[in-house]
Amino acid sequence: LIGTLHDETSDAQAHKLALEIGGQFIKFLGRRVIVSGSSSHLAGHFEEEFSDVLELPSDAQLSSSDFMDKRQIKVGEIHVGLETVPLILGPCSIESEGQIRQVAEFVKHQDLNFIRGSAFKPRTTPYGFQGLGVEGMQLIRKVADDYGLKVVSETRDTRDVDSIIEYADVIQIGTKAMYDYALLDRAAKSMKPILLKRGFGTTIQEFLQIAEFVLLAGNSNLILCERGIRTFESKSRFTLDLAGAIYVLHHANLPLFVDPSHAMGHRWGVSQLGLGALAAGADGLLVEMHPDPESARTDAAQQIDFSMASELVRKSRLIAEIDGRKIV
Amino acid sequence: LIGTLHDETSDAQAHKLALEIGGQFIKFLGRRVIVSGSSSHLAGHFEEEFSDVLELPSDAQLSSSDFMDKRQIKVGEIHVGLETVPLILGPCSIESEGQIRQVAEFVKHQDLNFIRGSAFKPRTTPYGFQGLGVEGMQLIRKVADDYGLKVVSETRDTRDVDSIIEYADVIQIGTKAMYDYALLDRAAKSMKPILLKRGFGTTIQEFLQIAEFVLLAGNSNLILCERGIRTFESKSRFTLDLAGAIYVLHHANLPLFVDPSHAMGHRWGVSQLGLGALAAGADGLLVEMHPDPESARTDAAQQIDFSMASELVRKSRLIAEIDGRKIV
Amino acid sequence: LIGTLHDETSDAQAHKLALEIGGQFIKFLGRRVIVSGSSSHLAGHFEEEFSDVLELPSDAQLSSSDFMDKRQIKVGEIHVGLETVPLILGPCSIESEGQIRQVAEFVKHQDLNFIRGSAFKPRTTPYGFQGLGVEGMQLIRKVADDYGLKVVSETRDTRDVDSIIEYADVIQIGTKAMYDYALLDRAAKSMKPILLKRGFGTTIQEFLQIAEFVLLAGNSNLILCERGIRTFESKSRFTLDLAGAIYVLHHANLPLFVDPSHAMGHRWGVSQLGLGALAAGADGLLVEMHPDPESARTDAAQQIDFSMASELVRKSRLIAEIDGRKIV
Amino acid sequence: LIGTLHDETSDAQAHKLALEIGGQFIKFLGRRVIVSGSSSHLAGHFEEEFSDVLELPSDAQLSSSDFMDKRQIKVGEIHVGLETVPLILGPCSIESEGQIRQVAEFVKHQDLNFIRGSAFKPRTTPYGFQGLGVEGMQLIRKVADDYGLKVVSETRDTRDVDSIIEYADVIQIGTKAMYDYALLDRAAKSMKPILLKRGFGTTIQEFLQIAEFVLLAGNSNLILCERGIRTFESKSRFTLDLAGAIYVLHHANLPLFVDPSHAMGHRWGVSQLGLGALAAGADGLLVEMHPDPESARTDAAQQIDFSMASELVRKSRLIAEIDGRKIV
Repeated sequence: LIGTLHDETSDAQAHKLALEIGGQFIKFLGRRVIVSGSSSHLAGHFEEEFSDVLELPSDAQLSSSDFMDKRQIKVGEIHVGLETVPLILGPCSIESEGQIRQVAEFVKHQDLNFIRGSAFKPRTTPYGFQGLGVEGMQLIRKVADDYGLKVVSETRDTRDVDSIIEYADVIQIGTKAMYDYALLDRAAKSMKPILLKRGFGTTIQEFLQIAEFVLLAGNSNLILCERGIRTFESKSRFTLDLAGAIYVLHHANLPLFVDPSHAMGHRWGVSQLGLGALAAGADGLLVEMHPDPESARTDAAQQIDFSMASELVRKSRLIAEIDGRKIV
Repeated sequence: LIGTLHDETSDAQAHKLALEIGGQFIKFLGRRVIVSGSSSHLAGHFEEEFSDVLELPSDAQLSSSDFMDKRQIKVGEIHVGLETVPLILGPCSIESEGQIRQVAEFVKHQDLNFIRGSAFKPRTTPYGFQGLGVEGMQLIRKVADDYGLKVVSETRDTRDVDSIIEYADVIQIGTKAMYDYALLDRAAKSMKPILLKRGFGTTIQEFLQIAEFVLLAGNSNLILCERGIRTFESKSRFTLDLAGAIYVLHHANLPLFVDPSHAMGHRWGVSQLGLGALAAGADGLLVEMHPDPESARTDAAQQIDFSMASELVRKSRLIAEIDGRKIV
Repeated sequence: LIGTLHDETSDAQAHKLALEIGGQFIKFLGRRVIVSGSSSHLAGHFEEEFSDVLELPSDAQLSSSDFMDKRQIKVGEIHVGLETVPLILGPCSIESEGQIRQVAEFVKHQDLNFIRGSAFKPRTTPYGFQGLGVEGMQLIRKVADDYGLKVVSETRDTRDVDSIIEYADVIQIGTKAMYDYALLDRAAKSMKPILLKRGFGTTIQEFLQIAEFVLLAGNSNLILCERGIRTFESKSRFTLDLAGAIYVLHHANLPLFVDPSHAMGHRWGVSQLGLGALAAGADGLLVEMHPDPESARTDAAQQIDFSMASELVRKSRLIAEIDGRKIV
Repeated sequence: LIGTLHDETSDAQAHKLALEIGGQFIKFLGRRVIVSGSSSHLAGHFEEEFSDVLELPSDAQLSSSDFMDKRQIKVGEIHVGLETVPLILGPCSIESEGQIRQVAEFVKHQDLNFIRGSAFKPRTTPYGFQGLGVEGMQLIRKVADDYGLKVVSETRDTRDVDSIIEYADVIQIGTKAMYDYALLDRAAKSMKPILLKRGFGTTIQEFLQIAEFVLLAGNSNLILCERGIRTFESKSRFTLDLAGAIYVLHHANLPLFVDPSHAMGHRWGVSQLGLGALAAGADGLLVEMHPDPESARTDAAQQIDFSMASELVRKSRLIAEIDGRKIV
């Protein structure tokens, strides 16, 4: 149950009210609402306190398009969602200043606004490269500022989340960290924009319920991201669930991005998969790109090079135009 | 191993040669080849008989892009593949002449060339509608001829395949019939164009191996079709494997279509999924459309109406144009 | 809806009744029932004709434990199900008389009653061994008769089903043939016992619905068999769905066997998996065994040898005893 | 590469050596090893320092049965693995002292040694019961001490892990927390026994690689636990991967438990699934049991009652005996 408060109710009154009915008072994109798991109290005794009371059947309430229309969120001065579609490029791992500067130069030249790169790698095996750490974050921040770009970077766990909060513009929560409630809580409370990737073993229903944890903490700057699920098919690294993405586009009020890189796993197919996602209505793309993919320290097989990326940007603009949207 | 014969070798000589080495002689798009599972014979004694001998690592040899470039096939005078992209519309089941005539009228008006509709339904439950049978096939043939359209229709099993061969222009082999070797054999030997759907529990590797059965029978008029696989996600009916489709586009020499209807399972998402497939490079679309979807006797939830279909055709043309392709 | 007829209703009357209400008259283990997809007719006008009318929510009616209790079926004089648990051993492919005779000797010596072996192989790739065909069936029949054993053999498609019906005691319908309606129909009408394997991409719900096709044809000598489904895990060939098997044991009235060989795919794990299935309540096991597994022409990796099989039989008897059951 | 040190090498020398070759020095069940991702250094210059050097093909080295034989670990004075097989019973959530005392009484009466129960619930939805927290842990500790039982309890995230370390005898890391590197690190460094559940979207290969993180931190008191994976089948809550469990039993040196409760999801099938796992060779079972399952605040559908549990214990003892093992 979600009760939307009257404009004249003060925040203090709202808190008191929430306490009485065992709910939670949160501000959500300008709307002040009380959310409660139990039903009768909210609907019954306190009806006069609310301008409207909404009963939703699912556990994904605040993220539902039944609760509010699909909407934009803001990363600094840049709008994300609806008619503006970010195409976010950058290497899997931050490896050196030279590498990041080349990427930033390319991104700027393409008239794009976001750069991605990670310094804390959640590796499957303990024997692989674990990332540059805080130094990596400082490096990408400095370069991004030089070029006026926004930084998207991934937090691996609660040990590094504060570094991501400090240096990144968008906190990426990866597919393996999606159920880390301590991490979700910390990221949510930072009030910074969050890009939450779907777990590769996670249903859409669960994905939206996890989004609800973030929204309930009062942080509504949330972007969802489909990046492929585990299936029996092994020709691609994961199976991009485009039908699931379309479900989210129809049923949630949050922007939905797609990461074609991890799904495909091979650079020869990444751009096609990304273009497919855009044509299907995705609100943005997150694509791994490296100045020299062969030499990349992580995910070498799936990072595209600058030439592939130029072509991806060019076609993305054409596809976005069909729906009156704009790549940023 | 595949040995390509010298141009001067006659068919009779080729048959004799094949017999000697325990292989099979087939004509494949004008190239005459002998294929054998055993290796040494073909490569050894008979080298002088072949213009080239190709050793391929996989069990999907004739369908491989290593064997020959991606190519068109022909359905009557219409080319399929490369720059021409069929958008095939029509109801799940043939229900009445009125229904089929409305559909044909719409398809013609959109300047399209194919109509689909089935008369033999492979139903999950014995208690559902099983189709109009031969009468249904005669009906769709008549209407299609009136409008100058090609018919795509599904064979369920060996009991009905001859009716499909007689009345359809393209024999559709459905997801459940994909392993029916007797059916594959019969369809292949008819030499009519075949549209082979991937089984929902079938890997890409197996899918291409099954295609090999058809090609080995000498019928190279083969179109592959991705239509969604079974995964843990239940918000859509199946999970469209777009990454797998892209793999086929890169590694096979056959046209690859996509059926977004069965994957999505809900008409509100079908067009988006279809547009995504086109932008990713699919060679054609197979979409269920009904004059009055709500009243459809089968798959009511997933058939789009004429208004949705018009919009799908319009956007499909724009997306195809980006790659210099044409919707037919 | 299922209407069970009064004892005094004759078959002729029943047929007439079925015709009137658009249903089907079938004899099912001594019960004479009329089944109809439509509801109101059966429940309404003809209530006086039936001793009971059963409305079931699912499309799996005749196989449901709500319709009748779990029961035995008979293969000749041997009972299958409830307290008797067949352990069926034999090679994947029938390769030679020597091979089959060795197997029969072993099976007899273990005091078991069934031998399995196939002559028509549904192969994934056209380049593999396709089986000995009719000669293979005649061979296994002869040897089985010499030792007084029952034969379980697989039909691949409608081209070979008559040979299986002629020479085998149990018609095995394999995982890939499970949706071949023409084959199901032919096998069902033979009235011989059928062992129906679950498709590797098939849900339990669909599996039971396909069983319904067989039961509706009037053949209730049906054994179901779980043999592993396709999942993301690749350390085993398939993922044995033991939880699904337990569901069937609780909700269907048919015996449920387990084939641990195809699920595991490696002989070192087959016996353990089989014992697990028995302890979980499976009504029988189907295990690939070969006198010299390394040399097997098909499925060499997963066939167990005689030494492993002896140990499997020994432990199976101990596990069966715990529940008062007997290995046959 | 793993180099085993000579007995006379001191810990200080080992640390220095590890530093020089970019590896890590860890003590692993008495063997002191240095592990390095790079190959040439360890094998080349320092060969004289090691009693043996082992090159393993996989990223799961320390857990491999190629590295050392399957073995027991110890939880206090109780051995786990090989011939002793813990059957761990207890409620999903700790709800009240009365509830826990009833469970402990039952467990003791059955001559078992472990009780399970969680106070921090990793819930899918934010609207569900989140557990009693630290008070719950103190409660189960007190009751377990009264009855001389060992406590297995789950840590949800890094916020609560210290409470689990303080009050539990075995730290359970749940299916959703399996990739939480900060949590793994903290639990590993506590040197307490860990029960690591496989993620429901995790391959066996990845599962063993995550185990490697724990072992590399020097904590070899590690129990693995299979609890079901996500597949297309929905009749059970998850699909228990018994074939995968058997793979682990053959290829890893760690004890492998099975949790049949979360896989089955319905109490009517839990005991059968557990008995199946035991017969297949599982080293232990983890089963949810509640004095009054219907009233349970979480997972009400899948908790078995005392009567079911008695029968499970009785049959478990019989199955364990077949292999000369003992339920503890």
